[in-house]
Amino acid sequence: MVDKALGGAGLRGQVAGQTALCTVGQTGSGLTYCGYDISELAEKAQFEEVSFLLSRGELPTSSELAEYKAKLKSLRGLPEALKTVLENIPKDAHPMDVMRTGCSMLGNLEMENDFSEANDAIDRMVAIFPSIICYWYRFTHDGVRIETQTDDDSVGAHFLTLLHDKAPSELFAQVMNVSLILYAEHEFNASTFTGRVCASTLSDIHSCVTGAIGTLRGPLHGGANEAAMDMIEGFSSADQAEDALMGMLERKDKIMGFGHAIYRESDPRNVIIKKWSEKLAAEVGDDVLYPVSVRCEEVMWREKKLFCNADFFHASAYHFMGIPTKLFTPIFVMSRVTGWTAHVKEQRANNRIIRPSADYTGPDARSYTPIESRG
Amino acid sequence: MVDKALGGAGLRGQVAGQTALCTVGQTGSGLTYCGYDISELAEKAQFEEVSFLLSRGELPTSSELAEYKAKLKSLRGLPEALKTVLENIPKDAHPMDVMRTGCSMLGNLEMENDFSEANDAIDRMVAIFPSIICYWYRFTHDGVRIETQTDDDSVGAHFLTLLHDKAPSELFAQVMNVSLILYAEHEFNASTFTGRVCASTLSDIHSCVTGAIGTLRGPLHGGANEAAMDMIEGFSSADQAEDALMGMLERKDKIMGFGHAIYRESDPRNVIIKKWSEKLAAEVGDDVLYPVSVRCEEVMWREKKLFCNADFFHASAYHFMGIPTKLFTPIFVMSRVTGWTAHVKEQRANNRIIRPSADYTGPDARSYTPIESRG
Repeated sequence: MVDKALGGAGLRGQVAGQTALCTVGQTGSGLTYCGYDISELAEKAQFEEVSFLLSRGELPTSSELAEYKAKLKSLRGLPEALKTVLENIPKDAHPMDVMRTGCSMLGNLEMENDFSEANDAIDRMVAIFPSIICYWYRFTHDGVRIETQTDDDSVGAHFLTLLHDKAPSELFAQVMNVSLILYAEHEFNASTFTGRVCASTLSDIHSCVTGAIGTLRGPLHGGANEAAMDMIEGFSSADQAEDALMGMLERKDKIMGFGHAIYRESDPRNVIIKKWSEKLAAEVGDDVLYPVSVRCEEVMWREKKLFCNADFFHASAYHFMGIPTKLFTPIFVMSRVTGWTAHVKEQRANNRIIRPSADYTGPDARSYTPIESRG
Repeated sequence: MVDKALGGAGLRGQVAGQTALCTVGQTGSGLTYCGYDISELAEKAQFEEVSFLLSRGELPTSSELAEYKAKLKSLRGLPEALKTVLENIPKDAHPMDVMRTGCSMLGNLEMENDFSEANDAIDRMVAIFPSIICYWYRFTHDGVRIETQTDDDSVGAHFLTLLHDKAPSELFAQVMNVSLILYAEHEFNASTFTGRVCASTLSDIHSCVTGAIGTLRGPLHGGANEAAMDMIEGFSSADQAEDALMGMLERKDKIMGFGHAIYRESDPRNVIIKKWSEKLAAEVGDDVLYPVSVRCEEVMWREKKLFCNADFFHASAYHFMGIPTKLFTPIFVMSRVTGWTAHVKEQRANNRIIRPSADYTGPDARSYTPIESRG
C-alpha cells in the first residue's frame, strides 16, 4: 500500500477517511452539504439551517429552527475571563491568532467533559465566535468594551452589529448569510483534516477547532480573500488592473483567489458571491472595485484558464460592507466551525487514530560522538 | 492510488511525506533521531544536545552547546500579558488546555513574522513551556506568583525547581533529562502529523504547535502515562495488582501504557525509563509502586503478549519525583515540542498543502424542502 512516490505530495487523491457531510466536484454544481446543492442552499436557506443540518444531519423544522436560533442568541455573551484574555492581546496581533487563542481559552472555561456535550459546545462556538473577534477588535482599535449579547436575528447580523455598532441593512445581512453558507463546509480541506487528526486521538472539541483555526490561518488556505483584497484595492480602474495583472503574470507572481486543489473548471461558490458583490457595488455606489474584480476574472481565464474560487469576489463583497480586510479570515472561521465540528463528530463515531508513515531520507545510523570530539 | 478499503483506517502504513528526523522500528534498538540511536542518546547526551540536533540537524560542539543553553536560560521569563492569561485559567482546567492556550497566547505576543525567525521561536518555546505550566499550576494550586527566570542548568531541572520551589537532586535532574530525550521525537505520530498539516498551509509555528498540543491531549495519544498512573496507584501490592489486572483483562477493560501502533515486540524507550524508575524507587524507599509496575509488565506479556510502551514506567518515575499526575502530559509537551517544530521546518522546506480525499457515504443528491413542508 505504500507508494513512496507520494511522499511529500500532500496526500492528494488518497482517501483518508469517510464522510457523509460533503461532496466536492462530484454532482450538480459541484458542492453539496449532506446531499443539498450549495446553489440551492445559498438561495433559499438561512445559515442557521445549514449549521443545524451539519450538526444534526437534517434540516430543521420551523420549531426546531426557532429553538436553535433562540439558543444561539442566548450564547453570545463572553465570560469575564475570556474578555480579560482578549484585552491582553495587542492591537497588532494577527486576528486569526486572536480567534485561535479565544477558542482555546473558551475550552478552559467551558470544557467538553464528555462527547455527549459536543452539540452544546458546538452551538456555543457558533454563537460566540463573532463576539470574540469583535470584542477584541473594538477594544484594541476603538478603545471600547462592547456588549456582545445582541438581539440580532442571525449570526451574520450579530457580527455586523458588533463590528459597526449598528444593525446592518437587509442587504448586508443577506450577503453575510450567503457568505456564511458558502464557507461552511468543504470535505477534507487542510483545516478540517487537522480537526479530524486531532479528533482521532479522542481529544476534546476545543482542541480540534483550535488546531483547525491555526491551519486555516495559513496563506495557502484561509488567507486568500485577504490577499485578493490587498491586490485589487491597489488597482485604480479595470484597464489599469489588466495592465498590472499582465505584468504580474509575466513575472510569475503568486496571484491569490484563483484556481482550486479539487475543482478543475469552476468553483460553484464563485458565481453566487459574484452576484451579491455586484448588488453591493450598486448599493454602495462603487464603480472601481467591482469592475476591477470582473476584469481580473476575465484576464486570468483568458491568459491562464484559471477561474475565480470562492475567495475572489468575497474580497470586494466584504469590503463593500465596511469589513476591515484583516477580519476576512475570521469570518471564514465563524462559518467553517460548523463543518469542522461536524467532521469531529463523524471522526469520533468511526475512529482509528490517524497515524500515517513517513519515507525516511535522513542520515544512516551513526554513533554518538562525545562532545569533546566534535567540531 | 485510491484504496477505498482504507477509508477510516487512520492512514496506517500510508506514506504521508518524507522525514530526515527519525526512524521508528527500522534499525538498531528501533528508534533513531537524525541517525542516532535512542539508547545511546539517553545514556550519553543532554536533552539540550538532542533539542539542538533536532532544530539544527547536527549535535552541537562544546561552544555551540554552551551558547545554546545560555540562550535557553535567558528565555524563561513570562511576558506580563501571558501571566495574566494564565492567572485567568481556573484551577480545575485541563493542564493540556493550559499549555495549548499558553502557546497560542505566546504567538500573539511574539509572532513569527517570517520563517527565518523559526529557530528563535522554537528556542523560546523550549525555554518557556516549563514556565507556562508551572506558573499556572503554582498560582492556582498554591496561590503564589512564581519567578520563572531561574538559573538551573537544564530544561528538566528548571521544571522541577519551579514545581517544587527548590533545586532537584542530581538523580531527579538526570531522570528528567532522560525522560525529555525519550519523548522528543517519534516520526509521524498524530500530534506531529497535525503540526505538519498545519505547516503545509504555511501557517506560523505557534499555530502548528498549538494544534499539536491539542492533539497530544487525546487519551489515545499523550494521556497514556497519566492513565497508567491512575491504574497502578490503585494497587496495594504486586499480588493484588495481578489479581486486579486479570479481572480487567477478563472484562476487556482498556489498559493504558501497553502496546504500540508501530512497534511489534517492544518499545525501545521502556527498558531505559524502567531502569531509572527502579533507581528512583530505591532512592525514595518505594516498595509498592515499582514492584506493582513490574508485575503489570509480566502479566500483560504473559497473558496478551503486550509490552510496556514508553509511557508505562514513566508513570512511576514521575510519581517518585513528586510530580502530580496531571502534569505528566505537559512534560511530554516540553519534550516533543522539539520534534514537532523540527517537522514544521521540514514540511516548509519541501511543501505541498496536505489535502487528502474522502470516501463519500452520505445521502444522494436531494432537493431543498421549504421549511413549511418539513417535519
